Amino acid sequence: MKNILHFDIKIEDGIFEKIVGEKDSIGYYDLPTQDLNYLQKYIKELKKNTDYDTIKDIVVIGIGGSSLGSKAIYRALKPIRSFSKKLHFFESTDPVAIRSTLETIDAQNAHFLVISKSGTTVETVSVYKYVLGYLGKKDICLDYRFTFVTDHDSKLELHSKTMKSFLLHIPNNVGGRFSVLSAAGLAPLFLIGVDVQKLLDGALNIKKSFFEDGYIKNTILKKATYYAKNSMRYNINTLFAYSESLKYFSEWYVQLWGESLGKKQKNSSFNVGLTPIGLIGPKDQHSFLQLIVEGLRDKSVTVLKVENFNDTIKIPNVTLHGIEELDLINNIAFCDLINMQADSTIEALLDKEDIPVDTITIKQVNEENIGKLIFYYELLTSVVGQMMDVNAYDQPGVEDGKQILKRKLLKK
Amino acid sequence: MKNILHFDIKIEDGIFEKIVGEKDSIGYYDLPTQDLNYLQKYIKELKKNTDYDTIKDIVVIGIGGSSLGSKAIYRALKPIRSFSKKLHFFESTDPVAIRSTLETIDAQNAHFLVISKSGTTVETVSVYKYVLGYLGKKDICLDYRFTFVTDHDSKLELHSKTMKSFLLHIPNNVGGRFSVLSAAGLAPLFLIGVDVQKLLDGALNIKKSFFEDGYIKNTILKKATYYAKNSMRYNINTLFAYSESLKYFSEWYVQLWGESLGKKQKNSSFNVGLTPIGLIGPKDQHSFLQLIVEGLRDKSVTVLKVENFNDTIKIPNVTLHGIEELDLINNIAFCDLINMQADSTIEALLDKEDIPVDTITIKQVNEENIGKLIFYYELLTSVVGQMMDVNAYDQPGVEDGKQILKRKLLKK
Repeated sequence: MKNILHFDIKIEDGIFEKIVGEKDSIGYYDLPTQDLNYLQKYIKELKKNTDYDTIKDIVVIGIGGSSLGSKAIYRALKPIRSFSKKLHFFESTDPVAIRSTLETIDAQNAHFLVISKSGTTVETVSVYKYVLGYLGKKDICLDYRFTFVTDHDSKLELHSKTMKSFLLHIPNNVGGRFSVLSAAGLAPLFLIGVDVQKLLDGALNIKKSFFEDGYIKNTILKKATYYAKNSMRYNINTLFAYSESLKYFSEWYVQLWGESLGKKQKNSSFNVGLTPIGLIGPKDQHSFLQLIVEGLRDKSVTVLKVENFNDTIKIPNVTLHGIEELDLINNIAFCDLINMQADSTIEALLDKEDIPVDTITIKQVNEENIGKLIFYYELLTSVVGQMMDVNAYDQPGVEDGKQILKRKLLKK
Repeated sequence: MKNILHFDIKIEDGIFEKIVGEKDSIGYYDLPTQDLNYLQKYIKELKKNTDYDTIKDIVVIGIGGSSLGSKAIYRALKPIRSFSKKLHFFESTDPVAIRSTLETIDAQNAHFLVISKSGTTVETVSVYKYVLGYLGKKDICLDYRFTFVTDHDSKLELHSKTMKSFLLHIPNNVGGRFSVLSAAGLAPLFLIGVDVQKLLDGALNIKKSFFEDGYIKNTILKKATYYAKNSMRYNINTLFAYSESLKYFSEWYVQLWGESLGKKQKNSSFNVGLTPIGLIGPKDQHSFLQLIVEGLRDKSVTVLKVENFNDTIKIPNVTLHGIEELDLINNIAFCDLINMQADSTIEALLDKEDIPVDTITIKQVNEENIGKLIFYYELLTSVVGQMMDVNAYDQPGVEDGKQILKRKLLKK
């Protein structure tokens, strides 16, 4: 992974030390070196108690931090790996979505993971109850049908003890949106056959590079300093990925960035924040690029490139009568074309001189590089959070809505 | 469709007259009253020349304005209608995406629509050439296999004349991102069985209401005035739709809004613009809501609600030992729950007092209401564009990148 910044700023004094200072109390920093034995034990238990090989569908019931991470990784790897089982996600209370997701699942041969850090997420528990009823109507045995992934001693853990089921924990000091490399994200991926150790290896590579004076340390500190110091001018940060496989990685990034950095400052009552936008090229060249190039100068742009698509399909040597001018694309591999498009976008943006641009390049989409990207963005979020004087790890702003909903439900 | 603004401002003098002034030269205003005979003729020709009933896959090769509109409508209606054919989209030069889309298509029984307003869109022509090669290798007859949808007298039209194929036109004065209700959007929808007349009926309802002093006129003018006058303070406009079916409608909105309003002003060299963000509830309550509620006050929020999901699935009356506190969701229909979540979000946002909020409510997702939403957003975009002194109908900012790409291709 390479990250080149096309802007410069003096790194904020003391900011690295602040990250070192929070490192012991914030759990996600430790995830890359976790012992994965618990997953081996888990699958052993699953194999003992279920007809494991006949399970075709692994179903996640979770929302936000309990689904976006595993979905991002699954969707990135799906086109290039052949998994033994399919992964599905219930992430909404939309009845139409619930029904269409159910239609794609062979419930008799499905295993469900109910993932909720707090253990009482309304959406997750609602869908879980519905699935219980649905399985009941079909006379499908509930024993060992569910795995619960939640905080130690949560109410969901208590509930899990009342039935024959499996239980995995999210470390209490790992926040939901930072939990992709904990059991919350890893368990479903492990069940379908993702090499989760490689995800951790990638994350560890970036962690070491950051904490042990490696290549990524200055880059992250400089980028974070720039973003934080210019947060009123460039209040929007776009991630422009030139690979359809990374569409859901963008969604994961949007939650991480938005929910971590959109806060009241700790030492003032100021509302601050940086707004994330996930774009996919070249599609969004035909949608969003005009706004970046000619619109208000309120956006930074990170272009994310994949060097090697492991795919050599080419545009054939065909002349179209009438459109001879486009003979110049003949014989070009699509992977080269998409990267030339990315490079053209970068050049066009750099020409403008007042748009902060940086580029991230990964060699290819694979477990290790996804692990790197994840940890890179988590670290960047932490550093920007420290610089902006916010608690990057809580989300008090969504409590009001939850309380209002509760009152509405009680009145029903 | 109802639209309630929770903010107030005096409507800009003379702005309505400006829209009336541009109405005759900008083509999209006329689309709701177009005569759809050309589609009837088209399908008659198709039936005469192909084994129409055996066609299972309708495949759009297009990008940006040539795909986002029909995809938005297709994805909104797909869960509630049973279409006779499937609709597919090639929207990228990503080789992995091209291959996985191809894998889902039965090429022998597919009909392809190559949609490009200019007729020389690099992505579209690249994929078209690849598909030609692919069909050739499979010895699939190319006669009457393609429909071309493009500007009058474009190079793609010239090309279409060299083979047995079908040709439809986009009116020259209808821009790509405003073309969903022209042949570009309607043709693929018509082929799979969407009642496209109803889309137009919905659009016409809003058009009349706006131009003939109906309920939507003041609302649109006031909202546009507010957005334009506060464009430096609230430079981000979020559309928060509480329905998974509207996910792709959001993407369509993002292109329309971003590409139309992100411009240099006509009478100055100022870069201005409003940044669109499409959100889906309740999922994004667990991702983006924190940023809206506690982050920098740079966002307006439009909550889009669907009154009736035509779906009565309920949360069963199940008590979960350990989580008895959530018995309060028992017996509630999911459609009520999701709307209570929307209302809770609205209340929580209104409590803040410095977040401009408005709500749009449609009775249900259907052709007519999607038509209304489309025309509502097109009109709103036009009015904001006039107020911000930009040409809402061009996109000069993406030319640089195209030229750079061309130079790179010539050097290859």
